[in-house]
Amino acid sequence: MNPVEIIRNKRNGKILTNKEIDYFVAGFTSGDIPDYQVSAFAMAVYFQGFNSDELYQFTKEMIETGDIVTPSEDMRNYVDKHSTGGVGDKITLIVSPIVAACGLKIPKMSGKGLSFSGGTIDKLESIPGFKVNINRNDFLKQINEIGIGIIGQSDNLAKADKQLYAIRDVTATVESIPLIASSIVSKKIASGSKNIVFDVKVGVGAFMKDIKTGIELANTLVELVKDFGGNSIAIVTNMNAPLGNYVGNSLEIIEVIECLKGNLPKDIEELVYELAGELLIIGGKATDLLQARIMVKEKIDNLEALNKFSDLIKYQSGDSKIINDYNLLPQAKHNIVIKSDNDGYISFINAEQIGMLSLSIGAGRIKKTDEIDYSAGIYLPLKIGDKIKKGDVIGKIFYSKENLKLDNIINIFKSAFEFSINPVDEPTMVLSVIS
Amino acid sequence: MNPVEIIRNKRNGKILTNKEIDYFVAGFTSGDIPDYQVSAFAMAVYFQGFNSDELYQFTKEMIETGDIVTPSEDMRNYVDKHSTGGVGDKITLIVSPIVAACGLKIPKMSGKGLSFSGGTIDKLESIPGFKVNINRNDFLKQINEIGIGIIGQSDNLAKADKQLYAIRDVTATVESIPLIASSIVSKKIASGSKNIVFDVKVGVGAFMKDIKTGIELANTLVELVKDFGGNSIAIVTNMNAPLGNYVGNSLEIIEVIECLKGNLPKDIEELVYELAGELLIIGGKATDLLQARIMVKEKIDNLEALNKFSDLIKYQSGDSKIINDYNLLPQAKHNIVIKSDNDGYISFINAEQIGMLSLSIGAGRIKKTDEIDYSAGIYLPLKIGDKIKKGDVIGKIFYSKENLKLDNIINIFKSAFEFSINPVDEPTMVLSVIS
Repeated sequence: MNPVEIIRNKRNGKILTNKEIDYFVAGFTSGDIPDYQVSAFAMAVYFQGFNSDELYQFTKEMIETGDIVTPSEDMRNYVDKHSTGGVGDKITLIVSPIVAACGLKIPKMSGKGLSFSGGTIDKLESIPGFKVNINRNDFLKQINEIGIGIIGQSDNLAKADKQLYAIRDVTATVESIPLIASSIVSKKIASGSKNIVFDVKVGVGAFMKDIKTGIELANTLVELVKDFGGNSIAIVTNMNAPLGNYVGNSLEIIEVIECLKGNLPKDIEELVYELAGELLIIGGKATDLLQARIMVKEKIDNLEALNKFSDLIKYQSGDSKIINDYNLLPQAKHNIVIKSDNDGYISFINAEQIGMLSLSIGAGRIKKTDEIDYSAGIYLPLKIGDKIKKGDVIGKIFYSKENLKLDNIINIFKSAFEFSINPVDEPTMVLSVIS
Repeated sequence: MNPVEIIRNKRNGKILTNKEIDYFVAGFTSGDIPDYQVSAFAMAVYFQGFNSDELYQFTKEMIETGDIVTPSEDMRNYVDKHSTGGVGDKITLIVSPIVAACGLKIPKMSGKGLSFSGGTIDKLESIPGFKVNINRNDFLKQINEIGIGIIGQSDNLAKADKQLYAIRDVTATVESIPLIASSIVSKKIASGSKNIVFDVKVGVGAFMKDIKTGIELANTLVELVKDFGGNSIAIVTNMNAPLGNYVGNSLEIIEVIECLKGNLPKDIEELVYELAGELLIIGGKATDLLQARIMVKEKIDNLEALNKFSDLIKYQSGDSKIINDYNLLPQAKHNIVIKSDNDGYISFINAEQIGMLSLSIGAGRIKKTDEIDYSAGIYLPLKIGDKIKKGDVIGKIFYSKENLKLDNIINIFKSAFEFSINPVDEPTMVLSVIS
């Protein structure tokens, strides 16, 4: 067998045999197949795709390059959630304590965020004392006792994926549905997840720009998990405008707590009820969304979900007093208030632009080694559909970095908004549900 | 500017700007853009192609990575010929002395052959004493005096092409029409050629398997040369069966001499008259093919073409006595005669299989560093359409290698033939002419 032939076969649209896939994955993992053949292969896959057999085999081989946790029989009420990422996306931190309060076990492993704002792990690390590196036994004990735990993803899961991703990242081959699906699912299956709800975000603030591609990815994810014997639902959701009213790490922790106290912005409410609902169904705690929604409401109203979040913080060595005293979270040195130049209805808030802005004030990272300023962030009091007058506050930017070009920042912030003289509907958040 | 963006743009089917192309070529030439990005780029070009502006710019940049010969005004009757390569393809060695005898100047630079049998340079090197490395001044003097010279291609022409080809070769990105065209034309333009006739071979024994792809390449080559201000004609020709009656280096030299003595097999005759004719037209010595053909016939009949070939051998230090004494050429130690198991008409001779066979007996090379056995080769007395009886000689294999698996070789040879009980037409050799 020869790597050039395998690349050529894929390039020509042939279905690769299991042997060819095994040979290729083994070859690039061992280094016998050099990067320039891996990148040509990835580009051929970008154009020709994988059918479901190829995708299963490829993912299986990727899984076998790292540690594998085999789920046990008594893990039927274990669930997992994965978001493809967006701007202001703190849904995991709201949904996980809710479903844990309902009796599900949700052990989450999460990657660090790249670009825009931080990831789930970064947000948690803004809580003083919070630890995201916990040894396996303590983590399992924690899940057993409180049903919830969120830690950094081990580099030992589907090890070759990291190596492949590093090549894809610099060769314009990230945007391949089967390679994305394989990367996500390999790590989930390797970590022992069996019941997985995916939040596939589409729109200007997401990796996937259009709904068609989002649905394609959602279908691929769900089918792939099923091929591994798991249960899966994927929700395709709207990621055009930033989620909620805050973007930034400690600011989003405050928003998570507010949501768990019952103060949910409309967009977050729709997503939380849908995603928590699907998790309750897939985890066997509810038979339909209506029943699930009632449970979600109850756990928010009776503060059990908030208490789960408090338990989570305590178990992972964080300071749970932040729940009632936001001043204990990192505080930005400065802020600027931004007022509207327009009258009318807000018709659009460009999440990508807000994301880039949050990155520029230090709330995100470009390289894995960049330091995040947990206190930096953006407050967006208004949502699409809100009526405003000239002079109303449309934003507040929290920052500590010195020498920022403030005029520039204000202009970028303002240009993220579009206005209409006519009333504008609130956007639909859940675009499609695939199971 | 950033290489990932350039790869992504090409991947997405965008037309690259001149700046992007310049940046990419400069980057991979300097080594700033690593091989894995070059291979991903090449695969993107395989799928998305180049339009004529991109192809011109890319080729221009490739040319500028090496030495450039600027053709002078008095080079109007200089012509060049390029074949994409086939099995038994000795046409350059027959056509060049003919057109030189007609008064054209034909300075040929030729690459060494890879796979199948040797290239033009290898065939010439089978002549005792023949030198293919000549300094530039002596070469120009030779062209000036006798109108013909054939030397090895300088590695300094379009230097980056060698580097790019090395990557394409191992990443299944050789088969890209624009990259093939750019590779061929960059070296021709860099060496100062202005009037170029291309022989684009299609069929089982050629790199291009189907006529559609061949015509596409032919069109691309002709347009590209024109974009550089040159004149060009491309002939798409049949490469299903081996050309002529001999495959192998010294055997093909004998066949060249026989052709120049007037003994042309039908298939070679058709190609020689067509290609020499087009060269005479493009070089301004004939106004149409009819006039050109009369000139070609005259130069063969009056032996002026043969004398030109003799001059070529002498000028390049070879032993021209071989023209009348073939025993002075390298002789194989052994031969096997192969007889037909069938009655009927020959309907097909698989050039690829004969090519692989000639390679296995030492007549070609797989790696650039392999040694060629000039004496090894195959005699094919019969052509498609010939009527044969069981027991007739259908081939003779000349070899010196010991320990060859002769049974295997005989079987491969026989299996290259197909027979019909009904009469079979001679194949058409010239399939399309593009100018």
